[in-house]
Amino acid sequence: MANSLDQKYVPGSENHVGQQMHRCITQLFPYHRSNAGVGLRQTLSDLQDILPIKVHEVPTGTKVFDWEVPQEWRIKDAFIADEAGQRIVDYCDSNLAVMSGSLPIRARMRAAELRPNLLTLKEELNPDWVPYRTAFFRDAWAFCVSHKQWARLNQDDQEVFNVVIDSEFIDGSLTYGEVTIEGQTKETILVYAHCCHPSLANDNLSGVAVAAFLGKQLLERVARGDIPFKTYKIVFAPATIGAITWLAQNEKMTANITGGLILSLLGDAGGFTFKQSRVESSVNRAVELVMHNRNTPFEMRPFSPFGYDERQFCSPGINLPMGCFMRTPNGEFPEYHTSADNLEFVSPEALADSLDVVTEILATLEQNFKPVNLHPFCEPQLGNRGLYRAFGEHDDRGRFQEAVMWILNQADGTKDLLAIAKHCELPMKLVREAADVLVEHELLGFSEA
Amino acid sequence: MANSLDQKYVPGSENHVGQQMHRCITQLFPYHRSNAGVGLRQTLSDLQDILPIKVHEVPTGTKVFDWEVPQEWRIKDAFIADEAGQRIVDYCDSNLAVMSGSLPIRARMRAAELRPNLLTLKEELNPDWVPYRTAFFRDAWAFCVSHKQWARLNQDDQEVFNVVIDSEFIDGSLTYGEVTIEGQTKETILVYAHCCHPSLANDNLSGVAVAAFLGKQLLERVARGDIPFKTYKIVFAPATIGAITWLAQNEKMTANITGGLILSLLGDAGGFTFKQSRVESSVNRAVELVMHNRNTPFEMRPFSPFGYDERQFCSPGINLPMGCFMRTPNGEFPEYHTSADNLEFVSPEALADSLDVVTEILATLEQNFKPVNLHPFCEPQLGNRGLYRAFGEHDDRGRFQEAVMWILNQADGTKDLLAIAKHCELPMKLVREAADVLVEHELLGFSEA
Amino acid sequence: MANSLDQKYVPGSENHVGQQMHRCITQLFPYHRSNAGVGLRQTLSDLQDILPIKVHEVPTGTKVFDWEVPQEWRIKDAFIADEAGQRIVDYCDSNLAVMSGSLPIRARMRAAELRPNLLTLKEELNPDWVPYRTAFFRDAWAFCVSHKQWARLNQDDQEVFNVVIDSEFIDGSLTYGEVTIEGQTKETILVYAHCCHPSLANDNLSGVAVAAFLGKQLLERVARGDIPFKTYKIVFAPATIGAITWLAQNEKMTANITGGLILSLLGDAGGFTFKQSRVESSVNRAVELVMHNRNTPFEMRPFSPFGYDERQFCSPGINLPMGCFMRTPNGEFPEYHTSADNLEFVSPEALADSLDVVTEILATLEQNFKPVNLHPFCEPQLGNRGLYRAFGEHDDRGRFQEAVMWILNQADGTKDLLAIAKHCELPMKLVREAADVLVEHELLGFSEA
Repeated sequence: MANSLDQKYVPGSENHVGQQMHRCITQLFPYHRSNAGVGLRQTLSDLQDILPIKVHEVPTGTKVFDWEVPQEWRIKDAFIADEAGQRIVDYCDSNLAVMSGSLPIRARMRAAELRPNLLTLKEELNPDWVPYRTAFFRDAWAFCVSHKQWARLNQDDQEVFNVVIDSEFIDGSLTYGEVTIEGQTKETILVYAHCCHPSLANDNLSGVAVAAFLGKQLLERVARGDIPFKTYKIVFAPATIGAITWLAQNEKMTANITGGLILSLLGDAGGFTFKQSRVESSVNRAVELVMHNRNTPFEMRPFSPFGYDERQFCSPGINLPMGCFMRTPNGEFPEYHTSADNLEFVSPEALADSLDVVTEILATLEQNFKPVNLHPFCEPQLGNRGLYRAFGEHDDRGRFQEAVMWILNQADGTKDLLAIAKHCELPMKLVREAADVLVEHELLGFSEA
Repeated sequence: MANSLDQKYVPGSENHVGQQMHRCITQLFPYHRSNAGVGLRQTLSDLQDILPIKVHEVPTGTKVFDWEVPQEWRIKDAFIADEAGQRIVDYCDSNLAVMSGSLPIRARMRAAELRPNLLTLKEELNPDWVPYRTAFFRDAWAFCVSHKQWARLNQDDQEVFNVVIDSEFIDGSLTYGEVTIEGQTKETILVYAHCCHPSLANDNLSGVAVAAFLGKQLLERVARGDIPFKTYKIVFAPATIGAITWLAQNEKMTANITGGLILSLLGDAGGFTFKQSRVESSVNRAVELVMHNRNTPFEMRPFSPFGYDERQFCSPGINLPMGCFMRTPNGEFPEYHTSADNLEFVSPEALADSLDVVTEILATLEQNFKPVNLHPFCEPQLGNRGLYRAFGEHDDRGRFQEAVMWILNQADGTKDLLAIAKHCELPMKLVREAADVLVEHELLGFSEA
Repeated sequence: MANSLDQKYVPGSENHVGQQMHRCITQLFPYHRSNAGVGLRQTLSDLQDILPIKVHEVPTGTKVFDWEVPQEWRIKDAFIADEAGQRIVDYCDSNLAVMSGSLPIRARMRAAELRPNLLTLKEELNPDWVPYRTAFFRDAWAFCVSHKQWARLNQDDQEVFNVVIDSEFIDGSLTYGEVTIEGQTKETILVYAHCCHPSLANDNLSGVAVAAFLGKQLLERVARGDIPFKTYKIVFAPATIGAITWLAQNEKMTANITGGLILSLLGDAGGFTFKQSRVESSVNRAVELVMHNRNTPFEMRPFSPFGYDERQFCSPGINLPMGCFMRTPNGEFPEYHTSADNLEFVSPEALADSLDVVTEILATLEQNFKPVNLHPFCEPQLGNRGLYRAFGEHDDRGRFQEAVMWILNQADGTKDLLAIAKHCELPMKLVREAADVLVEHELLGFSEA
């Protein structure tokens, strides 16, 4: 581990949840995460202070669909030094300095030889920024340098440098963590955050922090006796190979997933973006409904097989009703995958706002079910069953009764509550309350989806 | 019966059907109808002078889906009189004066005590209008008064009034009437008019009159030897509990219903409104086609589970292809459910126009069937079969032949004639004529729907 | 045969394919084609110089669906001469002069008697043009004359003319020709051109020529070792009865047809028109995709059961995914079905352009198949399989990889490549190349359609 941690994060030491999340990100920022290994393990271990994550280790070589769990990549040190021993590029300054997955190298070489192994950004972007690059599944090594460093290293083709990457690949395991918050039903809402990037704050410590504090708040809710209607499962795993591994290891369980979100890029100042699930789904409807009622910049995008782990969750054989919830999408802000995606780039305010929106979307999804009218022949008698009394007790009596009538009429087993709420243009909360009263009075049941 | 009838209505004594319908409404107006009892019975009995209604009595307590047939509510007299014996509110003046379904009361009470049992309209609407209110399935009594009456009754909190409602609930039966006009097939077009409101002309003696004269004209058509293609069934019954009772008693028969209309509010000066059936249906297509070709104000509205008996006919377990045909919808004109919905509010012209439009919509529905091409492999030989001769005999030869070719091409058993007419933009009458010629020449059959 | 041929057409004697097609039309123009007989046979025989057409003869009286193969109509001479022996109308000048299918006549008759048997165009259209008319399946005879001829023949009601049509109906056969270019699969693209009209150039020697040269180029492609992915079948047959006969004789084979075009009216100066197949189909998508990318006037029209042999191919029992590709549609240019549809009316440039567009549409259709991802659980491993190498070798690496990812994601067996190309807005050629690479690497299979 190149960087160490000054102080342990103490949950609850500050009131504002945005600041709590930002401190969590600050704590996790220095670890050198990659798709397997100590950085990932340390991240999950630290997160266990926030919520009781169960950590799983899947050994190197385990077959996961078309893939195998890779070896762990370990790195102790890396630098480029001049003949005087002066380190021009130093892994100890930033773990972005070495291309992730680089082979080891220990050599003296001239600038002209070194140059093909230097990755940098265009000068006009910013002369101080270092790019984040990976090379897993390829046999290569490289340094990621700022344009200033690049200029220094290319002053003279004949200058000789001491080039060291002290890395190795070893058999080990891929680590993922998950928390299950049992609800009243087995139907499961899945939240997924990739946690395999080194010192990048927005991508994706922001998603990790929002997922962790979402879980923390759900557990607090349970502790208050407010058991969620559905089960929540929150997974922290590496991108791509981690999602594939989790899906391969949990294939059967996915039948219970009725919707979910991939969380990423939730700490920047941009508006929200939702990339829809591959098929029309309840999660798309939930996001649409929630964002429609919020006065906040928002863009809905159709599914595409590029981006984050929706690529795996929405592959044709998996095809889960999951979409990716972000602020500014990947690749659409200059700091993306550079050293400028740092602790200043993410704000407590943005994080707190993201947590709030995500919580509402998932609560909306949690409230959803496919109702079936148990007395479908004409209107049932509401008075005898005390329904009118229930109407009278409701703050918004008129709209509550309206919701009751719409649900009874539409509950033929083909539409879920979200679709009914959209059809009759009533708030999902009200529709769910009305549905609960109907269930309580044995007028409504649950349809097999 | 609070009001008696001066003169019996004599059908046919006047030429104009609008005036005939208005006289019918005038005759029925004074009866004190409610959801069961003598006013309803007298109404159906009078209508038997126009067409041979078969009257059904369903005993109090009969189970009808989730409901039971209620007791009959009877009322002999009701008034509020001052200490001098002067009647300030008098049921003999208008049967709206007492809330329908009121419990009996006989008491001396002060104005301050009486006030909670006075129902009135806002003064600014009209100081002379009395509201129509009901309280079935609730234990309560009340008087419905004009704002002027209300002001008189509230001059002095201490003034004492003599308050009498001489009403009772007795075991009896719910009455409904129906006429069946047998067509060439068992497929049935259902026309439904609620007839349970006391002295309100538009709601719904207008619908009752249109339904009755529609039936009269259909029987005249049959007498001329013009047997309708489909069977028509016209039902007169109380709103809500009447529709539920009719559906419960005729559940099997509903399988034959291929479309129909709930008729109400057809005598006012407003444009037409059609509230569509819950599911996309032939009746929606028929109304769309007919109104598209008429140069008259018209609004198409989607289904909602509020309003008239479409609530029952379109409940999820019944789900009939029926919509509600009106002029100005319920609640959208100030006279609605007040004493101002009187004989002046409905006009012979509006009634006659409504009858005409309804007749055309139902004729369009009557002409509809789902055709299947019996020679679907390439075009069949039309010349050999004498089809070209048939074309030559038609007034509109070009479009008739066009209709023939479209039907042969589209008659794969998935579309009805209305859908084909819409697709090829030809009049339904022409399309049906072409279909008839094809059936006659054994080129077209009927698909199981 | 009224007209003889000066010189045999020699394929390849001129470089430009448009000129080759125009010479082909010039050669075929004089033959007196009808729905069966020597003109049709001679046409197919001449076309055999261009491509190896297999000629089929179906005997008179053969039952074909609802029809029978007709007798051959033969004509040797026909004229109207004045008493001095001067021929005013002469079949030797143009085979349009006699209504096709006319009964024989040999009579002296006055102008007034002759007049009902004269068919002409309105003078204002053009006084020199002669209409093309047919009367098969009717017992009648008539001459088609220009307005000038009509005026000459109607100078004097009492003038006597010698009227001769030396025609006969004999048992024989209906002739059709077809060429099959075997592809890598049995899936077949059908190209159909009617070839039953006498001396009319655009309708439909233009379609015949485009179909013939399309076949010629496909055979040249096969000779180069470039075997089409699908089988092509090109059929030349009379309109209506020829299409019916072909379908009746090839009913089983039609199960292999995955798309095709009826070709007609492809030599005039107008923009292109595609009349879509009756059902949404791959051919509709292919035309849409190709024409969308071409900067040429184009109109897409929905199917209607009028026009050319789409009437048969899209009858409900046949219902093939075929549409009609034309320039200016039938009946929408004044020269249509007149003597002005002559060799000047069609141009080498228009013909060459038509061939080019048709070839591209069919190539697009040929490239189409319904793919199924063989590794649908998460993304498959592309690196190990050498896919990234394949990307690197492609000119348009970025979009090629994009196409690969889209195909893998969308290939769930419900969408064909055309639908995927439209969905992801990538060129069909690129999408097919990507699909081929995936098939080659055993990541993609073919779905049963």
